[in-house]
Amino acid sequence: MSGMSRVRVHLGPRSYTVHIGSGILPDLGAAVLRHVPSRTVLLVADGGVADSHAPLCASSLHAAGFDAHLVVVPPGEASKSLAAAARLYDAALDCRLDRGSCIVAVGGGVVGDLAGFVAATFLRGIAFVQVPTTLLAQIDSSVGGKVAVDHPRGKNLIGAFHQPRLVWCDVATLDSLPAAELSAGLAEAVKSGILGDASYYAFIRRRAAALLARDPAALRRAVSGAVRIKAGFVEADEREELPAAPARARAGGRARTRMALNLGHTLGHAVEAVAGYGTIRHGEAVAIGMVAAGRLALGRGLWSARWQAGLEGTLAALRLPGRLPGLSARDLQAAMRLDKKAAGGRLRYVLPVRPGEVTVADDVGEEELRAVLLGLGASA
Amino acid sequence: MSGMSRVRVHLGPRSYTVHIGSGILPDLGAAVLRHVPSRTVLLVADGGVADSHAPLCASSLHAAGFDAHLVVVPPGEASKSLAAAARLYDAALDCRLDRGSCIVAVGGGVVGDLAGFVAATFLRGIAFVQVPTTLLAQIDSSVGGKVAVDHPRGKNLIGAFHQPRLVWCDVATLDSLPAAELSAGLAEAVKSGILGDASYYAFIRRRAAALLARDPAALRRAVSGAVRIKAGFVEADEREELPAAPARARAGGRARTRMALNLGHTLGHAVEAVAGYGTIRHGEAVAIGMVAAGRLALGRGLWSARWQAGLEGTLAALRLPGRLPGLSARDLQAAMRLDKKAAGGRLRYVLPVRPGEVTVADDVGEEELRAVLLGLGASA
Repeated sequence: MSGMSRVRVHLGPRSYTVHIGSGILPDLGAAVLRHVPSRTVLLVADGGVADSHAPLCASSLHAAGFDAHLVVVPPGEASKSLAAAARLYDAALDCRLDRGSCIVAVGGGVVGDLAGFVAATFLRGIAFVQVPTTLLAQIDSSVGGKVAVDHPRGKNLIGAFHQPRLVWCDVATLDSLPAAELSAGLAEAVKSGILGDASYYAFIRRRAAALLARDPAALRRAVSGAVRIKAGFVEADEREELPAAPARARAGGRARTRMALNLGHTLGHAVEAVAGYGTIRHGEAVAIGMVAAGRLALGRGLWSARWQAGLEGTLAALRLPGRLPGLSARDLQAAMRLDKKAAGGRLRYVLPVRPGEVTVADDVGEEELRAVLLGLGASA
Repeated sequence: MSGMSRVRVHLGPRSYTVHIGSGILPDLGAAVLRHVPSRTVLLVADGGVADSHAPLCASSLHAAGFDAHLVVVPPGEASKSLAAAARLYDAALDCRLDRGSCIVAVGGGVVGDLAGFVAATFLRGIAFVQVPTTLLAQIDSSVGGKVAVDHPRGKNLIGAFHQPRLVWCDVATLDSLPAAELSAGLAEAVKSGILGDASYYAFIRRRAAALLARDPAALRRAVSGAVRIKAGFVEADEREELPAAPARARAGGRARTRMALNLGHTLGHAVEAVAGYGTIRHGEAVAIGMVAAGRLALGRGLWSARWQAGLEGTLAALRLPGRLPGLSARDLQAAMRLDKKAAGGRLRYVLPVRPGEVTVADDVGEEELRAVLLGLGASA
């Protein structure tokens, strides 16, 4: 595999490039060197990659002349805490990071969110580099600058917008990813296609088997395409400030509210909360959420039965769930109401209109939703 | 006292106005109403104002239709901690703040820094309003968006740049300020004059007695003038990113690095650290630091003996110290080296060139500094 895809995220002085290739971890150090003035780096690695990708990153940074200090964070959402952030502040002071230094995160979304939050707040903000090693992180959480830790009462309640200086996606790191994690990441690829680009969606459908077989060229295109779609939304609405209306969020259009990226997430978050975090993967919950969004849209005459069948078939081909795993509709609806109160604002659903285009609805009724949930196998 | 001074801080979409008047706390609610979409407010008050200014702010917010929840923070630097921030996140969730809500800080710099850090990070950043009730906070910490908590190993190591939506300075709140606190605040006024505006500096010197007698008109001019000077530097260098060179930092000039605001602070921080935080007031330490900076400048032929005598006389008239309180030069120099390492970058001194103009020097030698410290009464 040779070749590198590059996606530029245009955010004025906070612009950066996402690099996507296969087998590119050894080149990380040289790339970081072009973006960071100081020679001290704090390398924050997920426990799951501490014996594999993290040492490769560390030696690449050392070879480029960096004084790189490795800190390993236990895998799992529990590491997204203020306490874990406090341990990283200690580590940053131990290795004498200064305002020109850099924090590099290697691993999945958890370590990216945590290390990014620390980078956003240490000395009022220092440079941050992402090396995502899961498909979900490469496709989704590495772009957009949303960093956060959790509060015991909710996910991502304490955070910032802090754009990375550089994102380095090596699809070869996906070779060691469990199959279910790969599928969960592909759920976000499907989401990207539906909300932003019909031809990308068609590519994911057509190349489902190659993606599951981890064909490097297919994975590179899956990642770069999704990053490009997300970059368009982030560029139009860096801090998620655009209102939902005008509601049409179209790939080529003007009003690209970042909220469109929540396709499948309103129900998805509730499924994660009711099933218990860690019981179901985020991407799996989003897959179920997209099926529900499609059925809501179908019921409103916004979206066709053929498109819905295509969506459900694609998710099945990617070995993703499309039905609710024995959860109660009542509990799910209560969780959604709670989520709405905690996050503030109104409960909004992103609904598909056609492949590549979504709309935002804030008038979905309780009964309308309940019917869809029951249709997906929820208990009463 | 009637009349209101307004200073606009021009920072594009983050622009805001600092309002300075006497007896204006009852009008706070109506002002906040013009800047904040949601009706829920978390009012964070310093313990020192919990029985005086905070209830006045709360009733003004209530009268304007806000659902204002008061939280009192113990006075003192110990409240600038991650643990204190965690308690405010809890309070923010308890009263269901949403992305359109606002945090209002009433009190001195500690509560402003802490509540501002929470506003910067809760739900990735919500609106923030400052109601500073000490002269130091009105003159200095209420403008510029620097918010932070301390780390056990250093002050302000965890923070952000988060501009307030509105700053409401009521000089009548200064009537209850201890005399030494008033003087400490005036040290920052002297600093503002020397680094940015000769006529403002002349006003502070001429009206020293009126300021100490808390004449409302004099205080209003002292606050509004200092805020205007600081706003100029903040507008030119919002995130302290401009290099020190070109070194001339002139009020009307082009290269106004925010670093100029550190006049008196390089030694000042060391004096605070060596004397022990809380032993000496920040403004008092800055006064000593300015005397030292003046003597360094004098030794280099940058600044005249007459200006130095004027500076030392002004500080004395304002009942501020100008000599080192029995600290050792060796300890002070070690603290400065440590500070330099912790904060990264080089040890830089802001030196006066003439009233209203400073320069930044990064080549001050150990012996050169030691001679000045000994001359100010430091022990060996």
